[in-house]
Amino acid sequence: MSSYFQDIPPIRFAGAASEDPLSFRHYDADRLVLGRRMADHLRFAVCYWHSFCWTGLDPFGGGTFERPWFEGAAPMVLAERKAQAAFDFFERLGAPYYCFHDRDVAPEGATPRESHENFLRMVDVLGEHQQRTGMKLLWGTANLFSHRRFMSGAATNPDPRIFELAALQVRDALDATLRLGGENYVLWGGREGYETLLNTRVGQELDQFARFLHLVVEYKHRIGFTGTLLIEPKPREPSKHQYDFDTATVYGFLARHGLDKEIKVNIEANHATLSGHSFEHEIATAAALGILGSIDMNRGDPQLGWDTDQFPNNVPELALALYHILQAGGLGTGGLNFDAKVRRQSIDAADLFHGHIGGMDACARALLVAEKMITDGRLQAALAQRYAGWDSARGQAILGGQLTLADLADAVLQHNTDTAPVSGRQEYLENLVNRFCEP
Amino acid sequence: MSSYFQDIPPIRFAGAASEDPLSFRHYDADRLVLGRRMADHLRFAVCYWHSFCWTGLDPFGGGTFERPWFEGAAPMVLAERKAQAAFDFFERLGAPYYCFHDRDVAPEGATPRESHENFLRMVDVLGEHQQRTGMKLLWGTANLFSHRRFMSGAATNPDPRIFELAALQVRDALDATLRLGGENYVLWGGREGYETLLNTRVGQELDQFARFLHLVVEYKHRIGFTGTLLIEPKPREPSKHQYDFDTATVYGFLARHGLDKEIKVNIEANHATLSGHSFEHEIATAAALGILGSIDMNRGDPQLGWDTDQFPNNVPELALALYHILQAGGLGTGGLNFDAKVRRQSIDAADLFHGHIGGMDACARALLVAEKMITDGRLQAALAQRYAGWDSARGQAILGGQLTLADLADAVLQHNTDTAPVSGRQEYLENLVNRFCEP
Amino acid sequence: MSSYFQDIPPIRFAGAASEDPLSFRHYDADRLVLGRRMADHLRFAVCYWHSFCWTGLDPFGGGTFERPWFEGAAPMVLAERKAQAAFDFFERLGAPYYCFHDRDVAPEGATPRESHENFLRMVDVLGEHQQRTGMKLLWGTANLFSHRRFMSGAATNPDPRIFELAALQVRDALDATLRLGGENYVLWGGREGYETLLNTRVGQELDQFARFLHLVVEYKHRIGFTGTLLIEPKPREPSKHQYDFDTATVYGFLARHGLDKEIKVNIEANHATLSGHSFEHEIATAAALGILGSIDMNRGDPQLGWDTDQFPNNVPELALALYHILQAGGLGTGGLNFDAKVRRQSIDAADLFHGHIGGMDACARALLVAEKMITDGRLQAALAQRYAGWDSARGQAILGGQLTLADLADAVLQHNTDTAPVSGRQEYLENLVNRFCEP
Amino acid sequence: MSSYFQDIPPIRFAGAASEDPLSFRHYDADRLVLGRRMADHLRFAVCYWHSFCWTGLDPFGGGTFERPWFEGAAPMVLAERKAQAAFDFFERLGAPYYCFHDRDVAPEGATPRESHENFLRMVDVLGEHQQRTGMKLLWGTANLFSHRRFMSGAATNPDPRIFELAALQVRDALDATLRLGGENYVLWGGREGYETLLNTRVGQELDQFARFLHLVVEYKHRIGFTGTLLIEPKPREPSKHQYDFDTATVYGFLARHGLDKEIKVNIEANHATLSGHSFEHEIATAAALGILGSIDMNRGDPQLGWDTDQFPNNVPELALALYHILQAGGLGTGGLNFDAKVRRQSIDAADLFHGHIGGMDACARALLVAEKMITDGRLQAALAQRYAGWDSARGQAILGGQLTLADLADAVLQHNTDTAPVSGRQEYLENLVNRFCEP
Ligand SMILES: [Co+2]
Ligand SMILES: [Co+2]
Ligand SMILES: [Co+2]
Ligand SMILES: [Co+2]
Ligand SMILES: [Co+2]
Ligand SMILES: [Co+2]
Ligand SMILES: [Co+2]
Ligand SMILES: [Co+2]
Repeated sequence: MSSYFQDIPPIRFAGAASEDPLSFRHYDADRLVLGRRMADHLRFAVCYWHSFCWTGLDPFGGGTFERPWFEGAAPMVLAERKAQAAFDFFERLGAPYYCFHDRDVAPEGATPRESHENFLRMVDVLGEHQQRTGMKLLWGTANLFSHRRFMSGAATNPDPRIFELAALQVRDALDATLRLGGENYVLWGGREGYETLLNTRVGQELDQFARFLHLVVEYKHRIGFTGTLLIEPKPREPSKHQYDFDTATVYGFLARHGLDKEIKVNIEANHATLSGHSFEHEIATAAALGILGSIDMNRGDPQLGWDTDQFPNNVPELALALYHILQAGGLGTGGLNFDAKVRRQSIDAADLFHGHIGGMDACARALLVAEKMITDGRLQAALAQRYAGWDSARGQAILGGQLTLADLADAVLQHNTDTAPVSGRQEYLENLVNRFCEP
Repeated sequence: MSSYFQDIPPIRFAGAASEDPLSFRHYDADRLVLGRRMADHLRFAVCYWHSFCWTGLDPFGGGTFERPWFEGAAPMVLAERKAQAAFDFFERLGAPYYCFHDRDVAPEGATPRESHENFLRMVDVLGEHQQRTGMKLLWGTANLFSHRRFMSGAATNPDPRIFELAALQVRDALDATLRLGGENYVLWGGREGYETLLNTRVGQELDQFARFLHLVVEYKHRIGFTGTLLIEPKPREPSKHQYDFDTATVYGFLARHGLDKEIKVNIEANHATLSGHSFEHEIATAAALGILGSIDMNRGDPQLGWDTDQFPNNVPELALALYHILQAGGLGTGGLNFDAKVRRQSIDAADLFHGHIGGMDACARALLVAEKMITDGRLQAALAQRYAGWDSARGQAILGGQLTLADLADAVLQHNTDTAPVSGRQEYLENLVNRFCEP
Repeated sequence: MSSYFQDIPPIRFAGAASEDPLSFRHYDADRLVLGRRMADHLRFAVCYWHSFCWTGLDPFGGGTFERPWFEGAAPMVLAERKAQAAFDFFERLGAPYYCFHDRDVAPEGATPRESHENFLRMVDVLGEHQQRTGMKLLWGTANLFSHRRFMSGAATNPDPRIFELAALQVRDALDATLRLGGENYVLWGGREGYETLLNTRVGQELDQFARFLHLVVEYKHRIGFTGTLLIEPKPREPSKHQYDFDTATVYGFLARHGLDKEIKVNIEANHATLSGHSFEHEIATAAALGILGSIDMNRGDPQLGWDTDQFPNNVPELALALYHILQAGGLGTGGLNFDAKVRRQSIDAADLFHGHIGGMDACARALLVAEKMITDGRLQAALAQRYAGWDSARGQAILGGQLTLADLADAVLQHNTDTAPVSGRQEYLENLVNRFCEP
Repeated sequence: MSSYFQDIPPIRFAGAASEDPLSFRHYDADRLVLGRRMADHLRFAVCYWHSFCWTGLDPFGGGTFERPWFEGAAPMVLAERKAQAAFDFFERLGAPYYCFHDRDVAPEGATPRESHENFLRMVDVLGEHQQRTGMKLLWGTANLFSHRRFMSGAATNPDPRIFELAALQVRDALDATLRLGGENYVLWGGREGYETLLNTRVGQELDQFARFLHLVVEYKHRIGFTGTLLIEPKPREPSKHQYDFDTATVYGFLARHGLDKEIKVNIEANHATLSGHSFEHEIATAAALGILGSIDMNRGDPQLGWDTDQFPNNVPELALALYHILQAGGLGTGGLNFDAKVRRQSIDAADLFHGHIGGMDACARALLVAEKMITDGRLQAALAQRYAGWDSARGQAILGGQLTLADLADAVLQHNTDTAPVSGRQEYLENLVNRFCEP
């Protein structure tokens, strides 16, 4: 059978001068950056759902893509064709990782058991493809939001029977992730949220969610899965209020329920901006709170109020994100998953490659910018100077709790001198960053 | 000296048929609602800053109000005239509480000690006015954001000397609140946030902030202040990122630093909506997390991206907010502070009354709607029915942690039956609420 | 065959005291308001697409509704069952009008001619149902956005063959609207917009759009259709930029192309708010520009950045909208179309009724409020007083162009007096409105 | 008297390798780009208001900048010091143009005549500075929004006496612009808008505004001013609704009142994004409508809902804007005015330079990117191919109005073939743009 991608050559690094749109001009996997391979910094993953499952459907119209694995055979046959095509794509692209939901790779069956068996069968198929191709699994996850049974949530559903159905899917998806050598497992809160408080008990639902996560943590340890558990914060969609609104909210929830040492966050760029934060804010916050896990790398549209999941392409913005990741010591078991889709009008097989190549090249350039930001040292030096007062004996005594409010207040009255503010130098620092964005 | 408000009669409850715009048509302080006086449910407070300090200045133009206490005498003389006018207003209006920042009531001096002494003197003046009028203090607070020394934050400033200057102000404001019988003390994070990560260490600043709060908690207990400490969440303004973004964020911060039993939140309606949440979401979240403290009652403009601090006037929306407050058992030491200002074009003395009267009447009507929602019982009954499954033995066993993920997954496979979803009935419930909004 | 709605009784006006959720408590069709029947003011229409075509599908999951006309027979048989159900619903509800797109009522065929014939056959069916039931058609329209052929626009498509395919649909839909006695014809710009300027010629596409509208206008007159042509402004969705962003934009486009006497606007509440305007702003603007045509009555969610198309339920907000409609002299051939859908979790047949009943009752209450606003007269009197200066001889001379800039400037220098501003009295006026919102 | 900027050397082009933050690394005025000097493409202007008048005040605090011309002398003496400092800054920076409001350069007096005379005197002073330094005036304008008399608008004020006071200011500002050789005159609609429809007659106010503009047009021609009149669109601030919302709205207003040949638009980047559009959308729209005049070059913050007026720094975004300006044939008499301010914490004299240098260098790099986009030709070729169908005889016949709706519909039925859509290739094109963003 001929491949859907047969006209696409394997994508190679061809250097910045390349005029071939189907080559990498910057992503050079083996190039050393701060002592590690570029590939090991970036750990790119292709997602199964957007590139192989989405039909181009949106709220105003049906599918636009006509992939050969969408129609014309029994569901499990189509699932195998899809897997074949996906791994063919992965190999030609040359990204080392992929990610999937259970329902991306195997069709829902007529009963829970049939769904379970469909999934197990397809996990075998994925395992064979991994074996054959050397592709690795960055993370697995379970889709607890598309089927109508989950319309009012999965773990936070008012009906405990839905909670149980969710438990089956997550158990199976965790088993599959372990078996396929996945390095992380992600819980995106899908429909864990509410449409109206009139039919919702927030406290009760949050308790259910915490219980579910405790079950997952216990199971992970029991089966010996050593990867990282991750929650992916997201606001607004699909529920009016999503419980996992942003990194700070997820941290508070984890801390309340004693889960903050067990679960980290998978930060998506477009979810960050929808929650009213910059991408680098979410990264820096997660780092400060000790829960930075992995990244869904994409971009939103600053004029649109929903998750557009576009491929990243703005190098100066990506450089700031990667700078904060590097400052935090990198992502550990995490990576950069392209939770991104080509536009609905980009209906050609080649468009899938253009999206990923553009994203990978933009991240590669951004990594080189971030490298310069770090090796140059001026940004860090400016920060050190700005906070120098806190390194003084007095500063340390205050932070260490050796002085009371009254001590401090009385001291001020006694010295009776004001303190002049110093410039924040934002424009100078921004110019410096722009300087690093140049060749 | 004639009063600025001399043409305004004391505002009285005159009943729904009143055509006098300077009367209450719904706010009837002594009317019993669910067994308590309306005044004791609502505990209205007038804020000093918007009504007596703001000149009408906005980013595009200077003051529009010409209050006699703004100009023409020495700062302390003007401060006394302002206090005189404020209490004159309070008395005519008949709200039982007020709130203030230290710098609202006393001018900044040339040195820390002079500012301190100005404030102490004015606290005496306020005390005398309270004595004379019977007005009570809902909460005090310190302004740690207007002076240029705080341009880069107070507790989170890169310079510990600013932290110390802030400590003096908060010590003095806590002392004053205690002395004036204040029932709460509020910390609004003013400029505790950042403009750019390029000049900011988030983790360091959050640690500074936690230290500051620990000092405040310790001091509060030391001086025997038994009121409630409150943080007021706010996103976006004035910093690009404010650390106290919303209730969930504040909760996480408090929990991380062991402060969640010591500090609650003061939720402002307009801050709620700016953070991407409904007002009632913030209330319900705070209630679920056990940190609901007090309310800043106002409204924003749904088309504008900043804090417009308008007086509340939409009764159906207010009813949902008050319903959730009543469901949470009320506000304890908290109340409804009008953190609201008349529009910049509303330059007459009477306009200050129209704003407050409209807000108080709207809240009074909303309280009566919320009373109906509760006494009717249908809303609660629908909720109980929706979550009934969790009351079953099986539901309780799941929530109680008596079953593992594998137990649940295996049980589903064994029964092998799906669960049909049930209607969320949102429109039915919304219609029911609208029914209670009618007379 | 038993009806899907067989358990729902015809909805009757039962008065404000009714506790039957399947009755009208305020919508009393024959009640006189300002001398006209309530039904003749409101001219409610039910839309076909949301209530009979939408499956509950959203970007994160499949259908939730299981209507008997969705599956299990040939497409044209299902279309007939759907029409049967729709008119059964219309009759039980008692709204006088409905609206539809061509593809709502008849399935797309394998070829243009088959689609055309399917539609013609279903128009016959609709005609018979109208005859039988007395239902009337408020407006017809063509769906030029759901099929993949329209992914890059219809009239504004880069390919003129798509423009021609759109012409066929609109010709047929106009014919059908005429034949079914439709009182208006709506053009919603579907995918007339762009995703990226990189593949778009804005000027060229706007010229194509203008040409298309000229063809429609010419055809309308040729066939003797005397209803109103309407464009429905909408921003952001589904294209990143929609050409018909808001009323002012549509007006400018119409004026540029000489179409402003031929085409009016159909204003949707949720589209208004997505474009950064209040609903009443769009109404007042259209009235000022002479292009107010009809209304899509719904509401959005102020915290969400897309079109949620919820049923309207906030009476104070609706009252302002209806007040401006009444001030503009009403809607002429227009009406209030419920471009609204029940929430995805509201899966019961009864939920469709609750949505519409709640919307109709809320509009009825709002109409009564607007009536009071008008008959009371204080709002209009305040406006007249505010602008009285422009009625003076001097004001009229300025407006009439009898004085030059230099005349005015010199006169100011000569008199050399400033003018003090007067209060805008916004809070007083808002309180007055709230007063009318009470019984 | 020593200069406030005495420590700042004249800013010179020093090449990309320069490590001197007070040098240009890319802005090389005489470098030829597409056959014109870089300086002649960019025509940079420094604005008077943000850099020399703003004190750092924001809604939450007072000034942070301590400029020597802010205090300590009589108003006119301070105005002369400010002018001295401004031209000193202009000379050191080396941008060829500046822009000002009347009230930026001269203080409001006690009477209209005194204000008028203050302004005339300062125009002399500016003229002398221009003579001495060679600086040129890009545009003048009048501040009709800061004084409290304009709180309810200037031309759209309910009181015609305010309209007359505005006429004086605009007459004087136009005279001054002519005398100082200004190349354009800008009308920013300041407070031409409304806070609430309850106290506003939209139609009346728009008529007033049109009358005012007609007076300005007539006066411009009378005095022989040959520069361009420009309206600067802006949404949301300071009024809830600003009449000049965006370019399309302004176009519609101009067309309605016969002003579209007399007035163009001055597009500000941050106003574009606040109105829900990309910067390049506003440019492309103005070009398509024939009203592209000049640019206010700055950037907003995508997470904040107000005009932050930051210096531009994102080169890929700026490149798209400049590409569309070049495609439109450039700006004619217009230029790039930095309507931008350093952050409130950037309190040093040097920060003013860093802001402008960073902005100028970013624009220079972006211009070079845009040059590559144009000379390469692939972007234009892709567009030509995409729209090729409209160049066919059939396409031209449709656009030319030679075929009716019925002709087109019948032809489709006769051929009875569908048309397959073609890929929009967005990712490919975006990658191409990114390729040009590299060195
Ligand atoms: Co996403
Ligand atoms: Co994601
Ligand atoms: Co506020
Ligand atoms: Co507040
Ligand atoms: Co609509
Ligand atoms: Co809609
Ligand atoms: Co601006
Ligand atoms: Co500007």
